[in-house]
Amino acid sequence: MVRYALTLAYEGSDYSGFARQKDPAIITVQEVLEQALATVLRLDIAPETVCAGRTDAGVHALAQVVSFELAGPALDARACGRIVRSLNAITPESMSVKLLQRTTEGFSARFDAQSREYRYYIANTIYPPIFSKNFAWHIPTQLDLDVMKNASQYLRGKHDFRSFCTSASAADDKNTVRELSMVEVFEQSHFGENLICIRIVGNAFLHSMVRIIVGTLVEIAAAKRGVDEIPSILNARKREAAGQTAPAHGLTLHKVEYLSSDILKQNN
Amino acid sequence: MVRYALTLAYEGSDYSGFARQKDPAIITVQEVLEQALATVLRLDIAPETVCAGRTDAGVHALAQVVSFELAGPALDARACGRIVRSLNAITPESMSVKLLQRTTEGFSARFDAQSREYRYYIANTIYPPIFSKNFAWHIPTQLDLDVMKNASQYLRGKHDFRSFCTSASAADDKNTVRELSMVEVFEQSHFGENLICIRIVGNAFLHSMVRIIVGTLVEIAAAKRGVDEIPSILNARKREAAGQTAPAHGLTLHKVEYLSSDILKQNN
Repeated sequence: MVRYALTLAYEGSDYSGFARQKDPAIITVQEVLEQALATVLRLDIAPETVCAGRTDAGVHALAQVVSFELAGPALDARACGRIVRSLNAITPESMSVKLLQRTTEGFSARFDAQSREYRYYIANTIYPPIFSKNFAWHIPTQLDLDVMKNASQYLRGKHDFRSFCTSASAADDKNTVRELSMVEVFEQSHFGENLICIRIVGNAFLHSMVRIIVGTLVEIAAAKRGVDEIPSILNARKREAAGQTAPAHGLTLHKVEYLSSDILKQNN
Repeated sequence: MVRYALTLAYEGSDYSGFARQKDPAIITVQEVLEQALATVLRLDIAPETVCAGRTDAGVHALAQVVSFELAGPALDARACGRIVRSLNAITPESMSVKLLQRTTEGFSARFDAQSREYRYYIANTIYPPIFSKNFAWHIPTQLDLDVMKNASQYLRGKHDFRSFCTSASAADDKNTVRELSMVEVFEQSHFGENLICIRIVGNAFLHSMVRIIVGTLVEIAAAKRGVDEIPSILNARKREAAGQTAPAHGLTLHKVEYLSSDILKQNN
């Protein structure tokens, strides 16, 4: 068997999350992608895929990475390019396959990911956004950007993020310590619409972690909580200590990083 | 009567253009906006609006400007802000009212516009865009950006643009001379997707002018036409000399400029 990594983008609004569900009426990214792979590669049984970040219903991806294996011989870069074009010809408009690459044996998009980057977009204008409406949370009340920037810095580094995940996830995951290498808050214009972007990079994330972080930062930036409250929320180690869960449609899995040695150089 | 200017954004895909049409089954920006104004202002007869740029079906606006008049007394800035919020509460998601301002007597969003800026976005990647899919033309074959930049410069300045408008428009408009103060081609990232942006600023535009310019530049950048062909296309003064009309969904009316003296200062 030969292993591959596939990079894809999708608009989360059209899917009930990445992970396949038992009910066949529920459309998931994984199911649509695996079916498309089976069709293009003429396989009776679709390859089983593993993803870098199991995005929830409504969450988007700019560059989700998925690994799977296929019976040999190994596909070269030309063949991979043809498969990418064929996949895009049959997948819905809300899904885009960007790249297919050969990887090392045993490669896993999930376990070999070195870091994951999420971006959360907020449209903080009285009027609703148009170009960003599917990808940003519209908050008409004024947020203090400097306060949000300052508060976000308490989240950097290694912490027990038990307060920043769903209670179900905390029960499953005995270890809720995670490390965030980057938490940045800045303004960015997309199609002329000015958005607040919250960029969070970490090794791994708990369930709903980014959305609870964003919901809490928004409450701080709206002066509903103090700017220095993050340390005590972290210490509380319970979900009720943190703020609301921000809506899914503002969140995008932006990037996943791997060791370059995991991806095999291919000749055309 | 007191005159006002209203700034609004819309996603063109949901409308059969700006201008009201006779068939009431056809949904236009003008009709939806005028109806919303009548509802919010409790008027029996909706105010008649005049817009800065009559966008075609499918063309978007980041900042369309519309003028209309209302019976006095003049609304102050607070009242204007309340009306903006009320309009946004009842208009569809694909329309966003950004600003309502008092103007000078006799002000016309159309005739007093000093310049109009259009932006055309192209996603030149093998795979289709996700975040930009409603606002950019997807061209999977490779375009030469430098060639496009060079060719675009022939369009700057005052020219007879008869070759760059629909034949019907050329028949109506005896004078097809227009002046473009700015034609720029550059790359720009929106939500992490790299797009080609063609920015065109001019005093006024002929029907389909920007879309025919873009269609022609794309043919040049794909090496289907020579980089020096623009002057001879201009000289030909007939539609057949230019390239295809680029699709509507890549085009946005980005900005309209007025003399600041036309907008009246309002106190809260």
